[in-house]
Amino acid sequence: MIIPIELESKTIREYKVIIDRLPHLSFNRKVAIVTNPTVAGFHLNTLLSKIDAKNLYVITVKDGEEYKNLDTIVEILDELFTKKLDRKSLLIAFGGGVIGDMTGFTASIYQRGIDFIQIPTTLLAQVDASVGGKTGVNNRFGKNLIGAFYQPKAVYIDIDFLETLPKREFSAGMAELIKMSVMFDREFFEFLERDDLSSKDSLNRAIARSVELKAWVVNQDEKEAGIRAVLNYGHTFAHVIENETNYREYLHGEAVAIGMVMANLLAYELGLISLDEIERVKELLIKHNLPITYKIEDIERFYNKFFLDKKSSDSKIKFILPNGIGNFEIKDNIPKETLFRVLVKFKGLE
Amino acid sequence: MIIPIELESKTIREYKVIIDRLPHLSFNRKVAIVTNPTVAGFHLNTLLSKIDAKNLYVITVKDGEEYKNLDTIVEILDELFTKKLDRKSLLIAFGGGVIGDMTGFTASIYQRGIDFIQIPTTLLAQVDASVGGKTGVNNRFGKNLIGAFYQPKAVYIDIDFLETLPKREFSAGMAELIKMSVMFDREFFEFLERDDLSSKDSLNRAIARSVELKAWVVNQDEKEAGIRAVLNYGHTFAHVIENETNYREYLHGEAVAIGMVMANLLAYELGLISLDEIERVKELLIKHNLPITYKIEDIERFYNKFFLDKKSSDSKIKFILPNGIGNFEIKDNIPKETLFRVLVKFKGLE
Repeated sequence: MIIPIELESKTIREYKVIIDRLPHLSFNRKVAIVTNPTVAGFHLNTLLSKIDAKNLYVITVKDGEEYKNLDTIVEILDELFTKKLDRKSLLIAFGGGVIGDMTGFTASIYQRGIDFIQIPTTLLAQVDASVGGKTGVNNRFGKNLIGAFYQPKAVYIDIDFLETLPKREFSAGMAELIKMSVMFDREFFEFLERDDLSSKDSLNRAIARSVELKAWVVNQDEKEAGIRAVLNYGHTFAHVIENETNYREYLHGEAVAIGMVMANLLAYELGLISLDEIERVKELLIKHNLPITYKIEDIERFYNKFFLDKKSSDSKIKFILPNGIGNFEIKDNIPKETLFRVLVKFKGLE
Repeated sequence: MIIPIELESKTIREYKVIIDRLPHLSFNRKVAIVTNPTVAGFHLNTLLSKIDAKNLYVITVKDGEEYKNLDTIVEILDELFTKKLDRKSLLIAFGGGVIGDMTGFTASIYQRGIDFIQIPTTLLAQVDASVGGKTGVNNRFGKNLIGAFYQPKAVYIDIDFLETLPKREFSAGMAELIKMSVMFDREFFEFLERDDLSSKDSLNRAIARSVELKAWVVNQDEKEAGIRAVLNYGHTFAHVIENETNYREYLHGEAVAIGMVMANLLAYELGLISLDEIERVKELLIKHNLPITYKIEDIERFYNKFFLDKKSSDSKIKFILPNGIGNFEIKDNIPKETLFRVLVKFKGLE
């Protein structure tokens, strides 16, 4: 006997990203804000002045990627149980990507899933982490290896929170915007070339376009089987750079900036992009104070580390490359010699 | 600016429950079987003889509800990472409900979700845990408080695995079948009255009907907002009985059996069921060696424990009652006196 189980999911799987001044939010349920001391120090009063809830709690966890692990998730869960949040309660992620990833993951497993909303306070989290539903933590085997795909109910992007963001972190967020433009939208790239985003209006417009593009990608491929891989432009190289520098020297966006330059040179080797376009991408990166080069000590070792990436199953490496500015191309089976011709350009550089 | 995010999920959310001899299964990917020493001791060889995989691993975890916690999940995860299972790998839950709940939860969070299938080896897991997508673990605050809704890719129900199941556990599973019949299907109830399920054909037929009914319920209400609550017939009372006896004296199905008798008496108080029908349910429970009574020490204390149930938000208790055999009724705001008239019948009983 075979009984087919058809699940017509009633889950609300749509949500809105609101890019504007944070509105006043009123909830007739228990709400817990999850944040870190840095963000809380600058902005918690502002947030509290804008939220009404049946009961409102604040859970503060330690700041930084090194605390993005299951132990911190258990700490948050324990607080939620102690405060007797129920299945109708709401979590608010108030911080950068680490806070967003951990709050989303906690929401996904608390009593088998409760609602959460995101109020990202870094540019990177606003353009990247707020769309796509990826949540999770690191463990001793690697980054983001434990987690869930779980969507927020809403994302509020208010650029006023960026005023206290260190300049370097703002730049790292810009790397993701530039990435989206190079992969998907030449017009957006040219807008970024023309405009320095110093006005609120320009910055809001750039964030909105980046979010739209990411939403379009994710919508086509929620589980990262195909086109979503394109979001990893620059990342195959960046992951090796981060690994080689023990995740200490570069912010993720900075490593991605270098990785894009490397990917562009590979694209040039394959006849996909002109030297002029490579220069334009470099200049845009430089305009936003992003690094564009890196000294590779040992090319063979660097090459071998491509195969450590968890995103490669069965040892096949896909490279995401620009096909001219504004278009992407996915290539695998790239000969070792071709990659070496790219990597050697970074040997002996400073 | 408001950007609507629409997620057209490409996730396969349909699967089959196959009630038959376990077929030969062949997988072109890494497979890890999660089981416990008891089930492995009786049946692992049989299972291994029926499975081909690229790599096949067996992960054995300690047997019992007291090990259904995050520590065991971390143990399983560590084994999976050590064995380098990737996003395309598969887990097989081979055991009772505890194994199913933990394997499903592990699958839901390993690299943000990998496939799993269920091969339940207890009657309870076959009729109950195999449908509905509930996964999770206990913590010091209560049962199943951490988890996810996550569907298996397939469920294989082979009653040959029940041959080594202790008789008492078989009976506990029967309580769930009887529950389904009283709530949803008078004809099924009458079949259970007529047939003792000693033939394989009858047992398969009864399991299939129970699975069908549960699938129908879950399909209407995947996230337990409405009709799914009906599956908790008997449970409001059972949870208090389990709590009062420290989860030691009764198997869950046994407590549910007593809970159904209590719920039926409440239904009688409200004019929903006849004394004759109450007797018929009792006799069916007795036929399967299930308890039908329980001595309440302190009625006030018993009553107050209704409000500890995590399923009651805002202190409102819903009682799931039969409206005659084969139909259900959900009632709340039941006066304390009415409940006391029921509970007092169990005071001084032995």
